[in-house]
Amino acid sequence: MKLHALFLNCTLKSSSEVSNTQALIDKVAALLAELDVESETIRVTDHKVAFGVSSDEGEGDEWPTILERVNACDILVIAMPIWFGVRSSVAQLVMERLDGTYAEGDEVTGQYPLYGKVGGVIVTGNEDGAHDCCATTLFNLTHLGCMVPPNVDCYWVGDAGPGPSYIEAGGDKHLYTNRTARYMANNLVWGAMALRANPIGTNLKVLDAEARAVSR
Amino acid sequence: MKLHALFLNCTLKSSSEVSNTQALIDKVAALLAELDVESETIRVTDHKVAFGVSSDEGEGDEWPTILERVNACDILVIAMPIWFGVRSSVAQLVMERLDGTYAEGDEVTGQYPLYGKVGGVIVTGNEDGAHDCCATTLFNLTHLGCMVPPNVDCYWVGDAGPGPSYIEAGGDKHLYTNRTARYMANNLVWGAMALRANPIGTNLKVLDAEARAVSR
Amino acid sequence: MKLHALFLNCTLKSSSEVSNTQALIDKVAALLAELDVESETIRVTDHKVAFGVSSDEGEGDEWPTILERVNACDILVIAMPIWFGVRSSVAQLVMERLDGTYAEGDEVTGQYPLYGKVGGVIVTGNEDGAHDCCATTLFNLTHLGCMVPPNVDCYWVGDAGPGPSYIEAGGDKHLYTNRTARYMANNLVWGAMALRANPIGTNLKVLDAEARAVSR
Amino acid sequence: MKLHALFLNCTLKSSSEVSNTQALIDKVAALLAELDVESETIRVTDHKVAFGVSSDEGEGDEWPTILERVNACDILVIAMPIWFGVRSSVAQLVMERLDGTYAEGDEVTGQYPLYGKVGGVIVTGNEDGAHDCCATTLFNLTHLGCMVPPNVDCYWVGDAGPGPSYIEAGGDKHLYTNRTARYMANNLVWGAMALRANPIGTNLKVLDAEARAVSR
Repeated sequence: MKLHALFLNCTLKSSSEVSNTQALIDKVAALLAELDVESETIRVTDHKVAFGVSSDEGEGDEWPTILERVNACDILVIAMPIWFGVRSSVAQLVMERLDGTYAEGDEVTGQYPLYGKVGGVIVTGNEDGAHDCCATTLFNLTHLGCMVPPNVDCYWVGDAGPGPSYIEAGGDKHLYTNRTARYMANNLVWGAMALRANPIGTNLKVLDAEARAVSR
Repeated sequence: MKLHALFLNCTLKSSSEVSNTQALIDKVAALLAELDVESETIRVTDHKVAFGVSSDEGEGDEWPTILERVNACDILVIAMPIWFGVRSSVAQLVMERLDGTYAEGDEVTGQYPLYGKVGGVIVTGNEDGAHDCCATTLFNLTHLGCMVPPNVDCYWVGDAGPGPSYIEAGGDKHLYTNRTARYMANNLVWGAMALRANPIGTNLKVLDAEARAVSR
Repeated sequence: MKLHALFLNCTLKSSSEVSNTQALIDKVAALLAELDVESETIRVTDHKVAFGVSSDEGEGDEWPTILERVNACDILVIAMPIWFGVRSSVAQLVMERLDGTYAEGDEVTGQYPLYGKVGGVIVTGNEDGAHDCCATTLFNLTHLGCMVPPNVDCYWVGDAGPGPSYIEAGGDKHLYTNRTARYMANNLVWGAMALRANPIGTNLKVLDAEARAVSR
Repeated sequence: MKLHALFLNCTLKSSSEVSNTQALIDKVAALLAELDVESETIRVTDHKVAFGVSSDEGEGDEWPTILERVNACDILVIAMPIWFGVRSSVAQLVMERLDGTYAEGDEVTGQYPLYGKVGGVIVTGNEDGAHDCCATTLFNLTHLGCMVPPNVDCYWVGDAGPGPSYIEAGGDKHLYTNRTARYMANNLVWGAMALRANPIGTNLKVLDAEARAVSR
């Protein structure tokens, strides 16, 4: 079965506006396609996602349909712009909603729904903040159950201070970003295949019981 | 061949003093031993490690002997105390010195020396800052080539403000820390075995050439 | 004229639910009242605030009414819960919307609207992440024009891992939080009075012109 | 009496090598000189500074002589390169050593030695990470007692990925950096003068006693 990648575009803009982050997503998705991976992108702001930390915040909340797609993918990439040096509010909102999955572990192994998936990250910004976005987001993904291969972040930022964004600045031709896009695509595929070949056997429920036995 | 884990203890204290971080390392190492992994710890401050970003900063620099141990391990765990909300200066020094490995990629694949290893992190502090230490350090490790399985961070912190440290506070009996120590040990072993069974095939040199062809 | 403090409560919950962050806001507001400062709190989620980086995102956007209150205060405190180790999406949303104020500088001095105000921060969380929330938010506030006196952060977090929140845990009696609440209240008042007595004279427009003359 | 500024250059390099961070320090110091402030720079790596969190780590430790200069200044600027997206190990070492000052509060007011000083920050790096360095460092300085005026950070970074540093890249002509250097110099001077005119009256000892009375 083909690998399936899901990109959550956490731009502040709705689909009626051009998203620099989407441009970089498209590049990575094209590289994944060459590796026989099918990709899907959800622009989060196109949906009414409620603030909260459960998987369903009730009437009108459209997160559950996004979560279905998350649960169905092999490769999960959180893509985001930088604002004020850190990840966008929409990216933070997405992570907060994923908090609900902790409570949805497998009945036998206790593994959370994101176990068995690989995580990656895409960041665009006029200038500084990509490392912070990548570090926070990849770490959060490992907490939620994702495995993170080496070099699965791809970002573009300009130099210090305000300035043109990825598309306008010709980021499309930026060597570092193009290189890391390729590392990312290939290593995500490696990771997803490795997970298929070697499912994580850890039984969190058993370990939890062991921990309780030696704790207060 | 047995898996080999290396813990770099980045406490500010030399071995003549008790290290809270070491106490938590010992716990994780014992869990790894149960999983048939042999462990080794280096207290970085016991060695004269020069400031710098190369793998050998010349006369008197003892980093090269530490780097040899890094290159020999399957599982690399950076262990550190929190100071001022972030990782210790010694932990930062270690990461800076690992920068030198970027230049030591495999001649054929270009993969950096840390490719093929799994990374994890241990953090202790009186109070706040563990997430920042974990996120920054695990992200750095993926940049250097490590694969990061889910839930491979283990930390202990007390509540807001100054207070007793891990040992004095009886952190040994803290459920969350004991639980995550088990998750960490098991998932590190899974990751190391998965890497043995499925070595990362990505050729960074080929991808780099491809990127150059489409960049300015 | 009395000093006026504005607290923006960036909890994810609407006013129908109890907010731990509000409990800590109330404590600091009471201390400010003793110092003859009148306080006002806005629960941001009670308003329809659009995603974006301008001061008015058009129809239905209720940010402009909040911004009016921001512009009217002497002391601005961003109060927030921690989620996934960093500030809540609502806090990030608030900062993004404040980005619009950069474009609304004084005609003569170029000073942004937040010049002449003091900034502070309140954080609550079950466990780790307060330092990151404080650092990011206070730094953002200085960029926007606020002055930050010493010790104007007040937070409560429990020890490592999930656990009770501020109210349930009896954080009300936590010495460190009670001490820093007092430092914060007193230093915010000092800062606001110092700003009244010594308005910042810096002319950003003149400096900008000087910088242009020596730059490319 | 003239205002006195102290720059702590936290480059990894000793004075025998050219420091990009120093180049940016020199620019800000020249702007301060125009405002009648005298400046002094200490290259921290030129001194044997021990790891630790007290103000004197014993034999051979040269921190005490640096601390004397810290205690004598009106304006304290921590200047640093970025490594792995965060502040250099030397900058972190400096903050750790300043931890010792918490224990050296005024006998009557309890104010720490850095009360009454203004803090600022200078950052250089090839690419990303300046916001994180600034936020962490300025927040730490407020904890230690410094007041932070608006816009007292000055940084230069290039675009995404490895590349030339400040000097080689002609950062000297970068508008954003030149603009913020001017904002920083002027606002630091405003802050130092405001502190002279309006010393912080907060009595930490009294507030601490009040807090104890209502805490467990």
